Amino acid sequence: MSPSPVPVGIIMGSQSDWPTMKEAADLLDTLGVAYETRIVSAHRTPDRLWDYGRSAVERGLQVIIAGAGGAAHLPGMMASKTRVPVIGVPVQTKALSGVDSLYSIVQMPKGFPVATMAIGAAGAANAGLMAAGILALQDEGLAARLDDWRRALSASIPEDPRDG
Amino acid sequence: MSPSPVPVGIIMGSQSDWPTMKEAADLLDTLGVAYETRIVSAHRTPDRLWDYGRSAVERGLQVIIAGAGGAAHLPGMMASKTRVPVIGVPVQTKALSGVDSLYSIVQMPKGFPVATMAIGAAGAANAGLMAAGILALQDEGLAARLDDWRRALSASIPEDPRDG
Amino acid sequence: MSPSPVPVGIIMGSQSDWPTMKEAADLLDTLGVAYETRIVSAHRTPDRLWDYGRSAVERGLQVIIAGAGGAAHLPGMMASKTRVPVIGVPVQTKALSGVDSLYSIVQMPKGFPVATMAIGAAGAANAGLMAAGILALQDEGLAARLDDWRRALSASIPEDPRDG
Amino acid sequence: MSPSPVPVGIIMGSQSDWPTMKEAADLLDTLGVAYETRIVSAHRTPDRLWDYGRSAVERGLQVIIAGAGGAAHLPGMMASKTRVPVIGVPVQTKALSGVDSLYSIVQMPKGFPVATMAIGAAGAANAGLMAAGILALQDEGLAARLDDWRRALSASIPEDPRDG
Amino acid sequence: MSPSPVPVGIIMGSQSDWPTMKEAADLLDTLGVAYETRIVSAHRTPDRLWDYGRSAVERGLQVIIAGAGGAAHLPGMMASKTRVPVIGVPVQTKALSGVDSLYSIVQMPKGFPVATMAIGAAGAANAGLMAAGILALQDEGLAARLDDWRRALSASIPEDPRDG
Amino acid sequence: MSPSPVPVGIIMGSQSDWPTMKEAADLLDTLGVAYETRIVSAHRTPDRLWDYGRSAVERGLQVIIAGAGGAAHLPGMMASKTRVPVIGVPVQTKALSGVDSLYSIVQMPKGFPVATMAIGAAGAANAGLMAAGILALQDEGLAARLDDWRRALSASIPEDPRDG
Amino acid sequence: MSPSPVPVGIIMGSQSDWPTMKEAADLLDTLGVAYETRIVSAHRTPDRLWDYGRSAVERGLQVIIAGAGGAAHLPGMMASKTRVPVIGVPVQTKALSGVDSLYSIVQMPKGFPVATMAIGAAGAANAGLMAAGILALQDEGLAARLDDWRRALSASIPEDPRDG
Amino acid sequence: MSPSPVPVGIIMGSQSDWPTMKEAADLLDTLGVAYETRIVSAHRTPDRLWDYGRSAVERGLQVIIAGAGGAAHLPGMMASKTRVPVIGVPVQTKALSGVDSLYSIVQMPKGFPVATMAIGAAGAANAGLMAAGILALQDEGLAARLDDWRRALSASIPEDPRDG
Repeated sequence: MSPSPVPVGIIMGSQSDWPTMKEAADLLDTLGVAYETRIVSAHRTPDRLWDYGRSAVERGLQVIIAGAGGAAHLPGMMASKTRVPVIGVPVQTKALSGVDSLYSIVQMPKGFPVATMAIGAAGAANAGLMAAGILALQDEGLAARLDDWRRALSASIPEDPRDG
Repeated sequence: MSPSPVPVGIIMGSQSDWPTMKEAADLLDTLGVAYETRIVSAHRTPDRLWDYGRSAVERGLQVIIAGAGGAAHLPGMMASKTRVPVIGVPVQTKALSGVDSLYSIVQMPKGFPVATMAIGAAGAANAGLMAAGILALQDEGLAARLDDWRRALSASIPEDPRDG
Repeated sequence: MSPSPVPVGIIMGSQSDWPTMKEAADLLDTLGVAYETRIVSAHRTPDRLWDYGRSAVERGLQVIIAGAGGAAHLPGMMASKTRVPVIGVPVQTKALSGVDSLYSIVQMPKGFPVATMAIGAAGAANAGLMAAGILALQDEGLAARLDDWRRALSASIPEDPRDG
Repeated sequence: MSPSPVPVGIIMGSQSDWPTMKEAADLLDTLGVAYETRIVSAHRTPDRLWDYGRSAVERGLQVIIAGAGGAAHLPGMMASKTRVPVIGVPVQTKALSGVDSLYSIVQMPKGFPVATMAIGAAGAANAGLMAAGILALQDEGLAARLDDWRRALSASIPEDPRDG
Repeated sequence: MSPSPVPVGIIMGSQSDWPTMKEAADLLDTLGVAYETRIVSAHRTPDRLWDYGRSAVERGLQVIIAGAGGAAHLPGMMASKTRVPVIGVPVQTKALSGVDSLYSIVQMPKGFPVATMAIGAAGAANAGLMAAGILALQDEGLAARLDDWRRALSASIPEDPRDG
Repeated sequence: MSPSPVPVGIIMGSQSDWPTMKEAADLLDTLGVAYETRIVSAHRTPDRLWDYGRSAVERGLQVIIAGAGGAAHLPGMMASKTRVPVIGVPVQTKALSGVDSLYSIVQMPKGFPVATMAIGAAGAANAGLMAAGILALQDEGLAARLDDWRRALSASIPEDPRDG
Repeated sequence: MSPSPVPVGIIMGSQSDWPTMKEAADLLDTLGVAYETRIVSAHRTPDRLWDYGRSAVERGLQVIIAGAGGAAHLPGMMASKTRVPVIGVPVQTKALSGVDSLYSIVQMPKGFPVATMAIGAAGAANAGLMAAGILALQDEGLAARLDDWRRALSASIPEDPRDG
Repeated sequence: MSPSPVPVGIIMGSQSDWPTMKEAADLLDTLGVAYETRIVSAHRTPDRLWDYGRSAVERGLQVIIAGAGGAAHLPGMMASKTRVPVIGVPVQTKALSGVDSLYSIVQMPKGFPVATMAIGAAGAANAGLMAAGILALQDEGLAARLDDWRRALSASIPEDPRDG
C-alpha cells in the first residue's frame, strides 16, 4: 500500500456502517485531524485487512478507528496485525442492538487490546475524540484545539432544561 | 502446509481450550473418524490461521471444527478463508459464561456461515457428531456407525430416574 | 413420504417464518441447488415432523435447514429424528428479539447437534451457504460456483465508503 | 402403555434432572398425591415422548410435570402431544444458569401452553403444588390437605430474623 | 363479593393490559368457557386483590388468569391468597420488553406457584387454553371441544409456505 | 400492632435474607439509629404485610427497609400499603444472581416508588445509609454522625494500593 | 450558589432527559412541592456538579432527584458529594434500553446510596412521589395531600377493563 | 500534586481492585514503562479524583489506566476532567460478573471517550499494552520492545494442544 499522508485510518466492515462511522470523521474534521476512510471487511476482504494491518506502521498511521457490527471481528483482527493503537466502535445491530458487536470487540484476550467505545453514533464520535487525544500527546496545536472543543461543549450546556 | 491425511481438523484458539475441545476428538475417535488437532490463534498466530484456511481445500480437509472463547474470532475468520464447512464451539468464559463466545461465533454476517454448537463441552461433543454427520453423507460405513451410536445413546436411558 | 428429488429440505415452524427463510431459498437458487420447502410445526404438526425426520435418509435428503422462533423446538427435534445434518435458523421474535429462538436452537444436549446460524435474515442466507458448502464436498461444479459466489462478494466491496 | 394408576406423571429429560425434580415428588408425597416418574428425553427417546403423550388421556393422567435443561424441548413437545395440562420446570444449567431452559419452556407459541415454574428446585417443588392445586378442584380431601400445608408454611415463619 | 357464576376469572393490573389479555378472553369464548374480567391492581387496589383472592374458593372460581407488566406482582400475590390455580401472563413492557414482567411472575419462591405463560399476546391466548385444559379434566364436553380446536389448528397449517 | 418505639423497620421476606439485611442493621447501629427487624413474607404471611403496611404511619415508622429475592414482591407491596418511604434491597439469588430480584423491585409502576439499592450486601448497607440520610433531615445530631461516618470512610482510603 | 428557596432539586445530565424528568416536576406540581430544575452534566459540567453537591446542605435542599442515561454517573457522583438523599432515574437509551443507565445508577458501592427508580417516565414520576414521601415526614399538609393523591389513584381504577 | 516522573498513572476505585490492576502494572514492568499507582475512588475520594484529573496534563501524564467495578464511575469521571487518554478496565463483580462495570465504563456520552478493555485480568493486562502502544508512537525503543513482546507471544504457542 502507498504511504499514508494522514495519521488516522477510519475503517469499517461494511458500507452500511458509514452513517455511524461518519461521526468519527466529522469529529476529526472539526478538530483538524486528517484521516483516510476504507471499507475493510474482516470476512469479505480478509486480504485487505491483512495488508492494511501489516503496512500500518510503515505507512505512518498513528491510530486506527475500526467499526463493525454483529460478529464484529474487524477491530480485534486489526489489533492482531499491528501495534498501532486500534479504537473499536460497536455498530448497533437489528436483533441484539449491538450487544453482540460490543462483546465481540471488547472481550479480547491478553495480548491484543481494542480501545472499545460506546455502541453506535456516540461511540463513533468518541472514537474521533480518543484518536485526537492520542495524537495531541505529540501535537500542541491539536491539544489546544481539543481543549477548546471540550470547553465549548461544557459552555454550551444551559443551566435550566426549561430554557432548552 | 503438507497434505492432510485426515478429513477433520480440530483447531482452537488456545491451549486452555483443549479440555473442552477434547470432547470433539473423543467423539471422532469413538466413531472412527481421523482428525488432526492444532492451536490456531486468530490473534496470536494470524498467519497460521491464514495458511490453514487457504490450504484447507487442497489439503483435503472436509470439515473444520473451531473452538474459541471471549472475542472468539477464530471460527468466523476461518469461515472467511475457506469454503470448507466450519463448525464453531463457544468455549465457556469466566466473566460472561460464554455468552461473549456464542455471540462472536454465531452472529456472522451474510456470506460466511459458522455452524455454531452449544457453549462448552456438550457443544464440543456435538461438533464431533456434526462433522461425522457431514462425512457420513459420503461414507456408508460411518453412517452405520453413527446410527449405531445414536441407537446406543437412546437405549442407555433408564425408564425411571429412581433406578439411576 | 415420496422420495425427494432434491438434496435440501427447507422447513419452518410457521408461515410467518417464510419471509426470513426465503433468504435461504434465494441463496440456493443462486447457487443452483435444488430444494423443497415445507411448513413443519413441531407443536402443531408433530406427526409431520416425525414423518419428515424418519424418512429423511431414505428420501435422499442431504441437508435440512430448519427455521423457527420463540420456543423454537423444530431444529432440535428434527436432529433427534435423523442423522441428516440439520442447520438451524433462529427467527427474530417480538419480545425477546430472537434470543429465545437462539437459546432454544443452539443449546442442544450431547448427541443431537444443530448447526446454528445468526438470528434472522442473515442467518437464513448463511444456512443456504452452509448447505451448499456441505454439498460441495461431493460436487465439484457446486464447489466452483460457491467459490465464484464468494469471490464476487469480496470483489463487490468498494474501497472507500464515501463512494458508496 | 399400561393404564396409569396415578394422576400425576413426573417426567424429565435426563437422569441428571432427578435431584431437581425430586422436589416435586417429595411435595406430592407430603400431600398424599400418587405419581409415577419417568425419564423421557425429547431428543434421545423421542418415541417414548410420543407414546407417553399420545396415551396420556387414556391412561388417566391428569397432570404432567416435565423438567428439562438447556434446549429444554420436553415440556413443550409433551404439550403438543396431549391436552393434559403440562407443568414445566426449567432445570438450572452450567453456562446459562437456566435462562436457556426458561426461554425454551416458557416462550411457547399460541396453541400449546406450558405452565412454567421458577428455575431449579423451588420451581420443581412448586410444580408439585400446582399439580395438587389442579387436582384439588375435584378432590375435597386434597384441597383440605393443601390448605393445611399452606397454613403450616405461613405459621412456620418466625416474627424476628434474629430468632432464626 | 358475590358468588361467581363463572369458573374463570381474568384479572389484570391495568386497563392498558386489556389488549393483551383479551386474547385469553377470546380463546375462552371460542371454547365456550364462561369467565369474568376484572382490573385488580396489586399496587393501586391491594384491597381488591385481597378480597378477590380470599373469596376465590367460596365464589367457585376454578382458575384465575392474571396478567401484569413490569414489577408484575399481581399473579404471585394472588397465588399467595388462594389455592385456586393462578396462570400468569407477562405483559410486554417498553424498556425491558417484558423480561421484567417474566422474572417477577415466574421466579416465585417455594409454596406459591404461578403457571407462567409466554410474554405478550401468545401467552395470553395460551392462558385461555391452559385454563380450558384444567377445566376439561372435569368436563367431557369441553375436553372434546378442546381436542377439536387443537385438531383444527393442526389441520390449518399448509404444507408449503409458498402456498401461504 | 403496638406503637413502634423506633423510626426504622427492617423487614425481609425470609430468614435466609438476614445475613444480607444484617448489613443494614449494622450500619444503623453504627450511626445510632434505632430499628426493629421483622420477617414479613409477601407470599407466606400476606396478612402480616398488610398489618405492617397499614399501621406504619400510626406506629410512627419513618422509613421501611425491605429486602427480598427472586420474585421479590415485598418492597413493592409495602409501598402500595403505606406512604412511609420504602427502601428496597434485591437479595442475590442462585440462578439469576439477583437480576430477578432487582427487576421485581425497581420496575414499579407510577404511583408506588421503591428506593432500590444495589444487589446484595452493599445494597443492604446502603439502605441503612439512605435511611439515616432521610432521618438526618430532621435530626442534626444524626446529620453530624453521618457526616463523620462519610469523612472517616474517605479518610480510610490509602493513597497507593501497594500499601494495602 | 445562592440559597435554594425550594426543598427539591431536579437535575439531569442533558437537555434530552427533560421529557422524561418533566414527569417528576409534574408530580411535584400536583402535590404542591416546590423545586428547581438544573442541567448538571457529570461529564460536561463536572464543576457544576461539584458546586451543586457541596452546597446542597447549606442551600437547604432536602432531596435531589437526578436523571441520566447510558454511563449515568450523575446520581452516584452527586451522592458522593452530599448527604442529602439522592433519587436516581435511569433514562431509557437507544441501544441498551436503559439497562446501562440502571446498572450505572443502582450498583453503587457501600457508602453512597442512590434511591433508584424504574427506567423511564414511570420512574421519573415515582421520583417525585418518593421525594414527596420523604418531605411528608416533616409536613402534615403534604402528607395529607399525598394520601389524597394515592386514594384518588386507587379510586380511578374501573372494575372491569371492558368499561375502559 | 507534584510533577509525575512517569508517563502512566494506574488508578483504581478500591484496594480490592489491585489484584486485577496489578496485571497492567506487570505488563508495563515487562515493557520497561514507568508508572505510578493510586487509589482514587470516584465516590469516597472525589476530591482526589478532581485533583488527579485537573493536574494530569501539567504533571506530564500521558496515559491514565483506570479500573473500577459495579457502578464504575472512575474512568468516565477522569475522562471528564482531563484530555489525557483514559483506558478503562471493568473489574469483575459478584452479582453481575462485571457487566455492570462494563456498561458503566463503555457507554460514555459523546465528548468523553474511555478506551474500554475486557472485563477482569485480561482487560487489565491489555490496558498496559494499549498504554504502551500509545507511548510507542513517540518512543522507538518502546516500539521495538512491544514488537518483540508480541512476536514472543506468537512464538510461544505450540502447534498441537496435545503437546501442551
